Amino acid sequence: MAKPGLPQGMRDFSAETVRKRNYILDTITSVMKLYGYQPLETPAMENLDTLMGKYGEEGDKLIFKVLNNGLHDPKNAAKTRAGFEKLMEGKNTADLTERALKYDLTIPFARYVAMNHGNLTMPFKRYQVQPVWRADRPQRGRYREFTQCDADVVGSRSLINEVELSLIYHTAFTQLGIAQYRLKINSRKILTALAEKCGGAEKINSLSIAIDKLDKIGLEKVKEELLNRGFNDSQVEIATSFLALSGSNQEKLEAIKKLFENNELASAGVNEINYVLQHTSGIPIDVDLTLARGLDYYTGIIFEAKAPEEVKMGSIGGGGRYDDLTGLFGLPGITGVGISFGIDRIYDVLEEMNLFPASIQQAVSALFINMGTPESEQAFQNAQALRTAGIACEMYPENIKLDKQFRYADKKNIPFAIIMGAQEIASNIALVKDLATGHQEKVDLTHLVEYFSKK
Amino acid sequence: MAKPGLPQGMRDFSAETVRKRNYILDTITSVMKLYGYQPLETPAMENLDTLMGKYGEEGDKLIFKVLNNGLHDPKNAAKTRAGFEKLMEGKNTADLTERALKYDLTIPFARYVAMNHGNLTMPFKRYQVQPVWRADRPQRGRYREFTQCDADVVGSRSLINEVELSLIYHTAFTQLGIAQYRLKINSRKILTALAEKCGGAEKINSLSIAIDKLDKIGLEKVKEELLNRGFNDSQVEIATSFLALSGSNQEKLEAIKKLFENNELASAGVNEINYVLQHTSGIPIDVDLTLARGLDYYTGIIFEAKAPEEVKMGSIGGGGRYDDLTGLFGLPGITGVGISFGIDRIYDVLEEMNLFPASIQQAVSALFINMGTPESEQAFQNAQALRTAGIACEMYPENIKLDKQFRYADKKNIPFAIIMGAQEIASNIALVKDLATGHQEKVDLTHLVEYFSKK
Repeated sequence: MAKPGLPQGMRDFSAETVRKRNYILDTITSVMKLYGYQPLETPAMENLDTLMGKYGEEGDKLIFKVLNNGLHDPKNAAKTRAGFEKLMEGKNTADLTERALKYDLTIPFARYVAMNHGNLTMPFKRYQVQPVWRADRPQRGRYREFTQCDADVVGSRSLINEVELSLIYHTAFTQLGIAQYRLKINSRKILTALAEKCGGAEKINSLSIAIDKLDKIGLEKVKEELLNRGFNDSQVEIATSFLALSGSNQEKLEAIKKLFENNELASAGVNEINYVLQHTSGIPIDVDLTLARGLDYYTGIIFEAKAPEEVKMGSIGGGGRYDDLTGLFGLPGITGVGISFGIDRIYDVLEEMNLFPASIQQAVSALFINMGTPESEQAFQNAQALRTAGIACEMYPENIKLDKQFRYADKKNIPFAIIMGAQEIASNIALVKDLATGHQEKVDLTHLVEYFSKK
Repeated sequence: MAKPGLPQGMRDFSAETVRKRNYILDTITSVMKLYGYQPLETPAMENLDTLMGKYGEEGDKLIFKVLNNGLHDPKNAAKTRAGFEKLMEGKNTADLTERALKYDLTIPFARYVAMNHGNLTMPFKRYQVQPVWRADRPQRGRYREFTQCDADVVGSRSLINEVELSLIYHTAFTQLGIAQYRLKINSRKILTALAEKCGGAEKINSLSIAIDKLDKIGLEKVKEELLNRGFNDSQVEIATSFLALSGSNQEKLEAIKKLFENNELASAGVNEINYVLQHTSGIPIDVDLTLARGLDYYTGIIFEAKAPEEVKMGSIGGGGRYDDLTGLFGLPGITGVGISFGIDRIYDVLEEMNLFPASIQQAVSALFINMGTPESEQAFQNAQALRTAGIACEMYPENIKLDKQFRYADKKNIPFAIIMGAQEIASNIALVKDLATGHQEKVDLTHLVEYFSKK
């Protein structure tokens, strides 16, 4: 007999957790909708070749591949065996696994845009909230199945999109109660100008990957990494002095202008950041020149949202502009900008700061106590009247001891018990008991719906 | 370069489709919530041994198995090779695939209950809406990834649960506009009594599987199948006369009583059906003695919901009572009853009957036309005011030709365009154009939020 268990790194979500997660997701997506973002859903599986080679060598290893069906069928056996030998050599496994589980939402979105661009209304604004799967080593806060929540707009170069995405972050986090979150902004154009100064624009990715680790490993280790990545001493020096630029947003941007003199890229980067800052006055955004984002497809403004300082949870979102989303799928020149929300981290932040509203757990308004037949028949009719009026309620299905029925209400966080014994029914009333205070009230049965409509 | 494509039998859902699907799912789950059902989510993957052997030999073949990672690592190579040879013999593949994608929601629910029963509040009522995966041959209306939508209550024998589930079907289908759906009811107890009369109670599954095909293959073929399944001529005769019982619900139930005389099972079955009928007066339920449900775990009342006759789409839901949900996972004696909704079929029914409300596609109330700088700055401020008031709107991000901007509004189903040129701004007004009628109205900017709040 199978002892029941869950695969490593995977989770069941109980009602309480689902409600908390939905509270976060509903809050975020309702803000996205205010800005005209529309939902998209893509399948859990993609063709293997859609995903392979898109996430670097390490990423490829973490993709969950789905075994083809019918492999041992005699007519497939030769191909299967050949595919297996390739697998054992660490090569392409498409003969065994044509499909794989999606690893993020960006590549499936790119595949969707490439497949459907003729029919899409551009600019195309979509949000997407779906699980993704990674065969990472499970650890605290890292799961093999987790939900991503992205908003992207493609087909528009206007910086108003960056402005709106900043406002979406601000509105969503404020509505979730974490107005002390911090939004950081930088520009890949400025970082590319820095790479030019450090030996060549093509070093931008190498440079970004190293700088991106600053928060985690500190400046000395970043210097070491830069040296290891082939930057020489004087180039590392330039990078270091860049990372040390400080002051207010405007002071930093002035310093950048000075440092890069008439470099066009740097000055474009500064102007873009200025545009976003000017159009988001009233919301706090920090220019952070050490913000790099590890992913190599960003080309313009980049964002990172950090949890409030007090909870020490780091990044709760990030994004940026890219110039070529779909080139890998044969459709070049599609620019766009997107952000994502780190749902599991945000969940942990709200939990730690005790910010989930208690009301989201009160899913049922009242429990009708089962007093046996015929009383329960009358109770059931009243339960139906409440439900018809949109008030969630239950009648305990069995006539068991009252204290057990009350305990059921308690465990399910049901605030009121409704007692209708023979005596109450004869008087056309119900006893409504507030289970938090113990207070009991007689309510006329003809007013029961009204009574709970006002609660 | 990868030519972008989708795996066979899988679908992208565009915004329009997501909204229609969510309309169905929100309607159904909101009804389930009125009855105290609570959400549960389980992972996409289960351990292979949780799933294998639960769906019959054919089902096992249709389970999507997920390849283990690190198989070609030298330290795993011997085990991998042994696992592969087993796979080629059509045997257990756990050495290659420890995990598989869930095939339905019932077995993961059983696994969850078995793992957590100590902490669950019984009776435990859960609903679950998640995708499942089957490696079926794709065909019209049958997909390899599809959403199941189930409600189950375990830990209560009370027939009030069957009553409430009938009412959930009725309320949900009525709210969706298909009040002409038909709900059929039967009892596995009556069918077991029939099996007893036809050679033994243990023939119930064989009998049910054959009867279940009546709708599709007709009576003559069912007779053939019963003969093939080892029933003799006189037993087939008994079954046939049972299937021919007709008349009103009460006439059928009376005929059953007569046919089975004092058989306890049959009379329990009749009484249970009577209880449900009596407690659901006002909603149409048909006693259908030919309803059998192919699945072998049902033991009491069984249900099937059929699409309105006019659309000829067959079953849009089904369910029933089972006596032993979790025995396979080491926890015997857990009874329960559940129903499920066939979301894809319901979608097709609403589509064909033109029942999706047009309003669900109107996600954005207004498009601010971009008249260039500085006008667009003023427009953007007004857009923000609308959004703050909870009104979804967009400003076209670029200053392109007006007809292109209007076309964008049209394609996105946005009903109003808001035009703020220099002249309008100077007069502190906006021109609001109804894009359906072409009618234009001047609205004072200070009243714009109010104007759209009333729309």
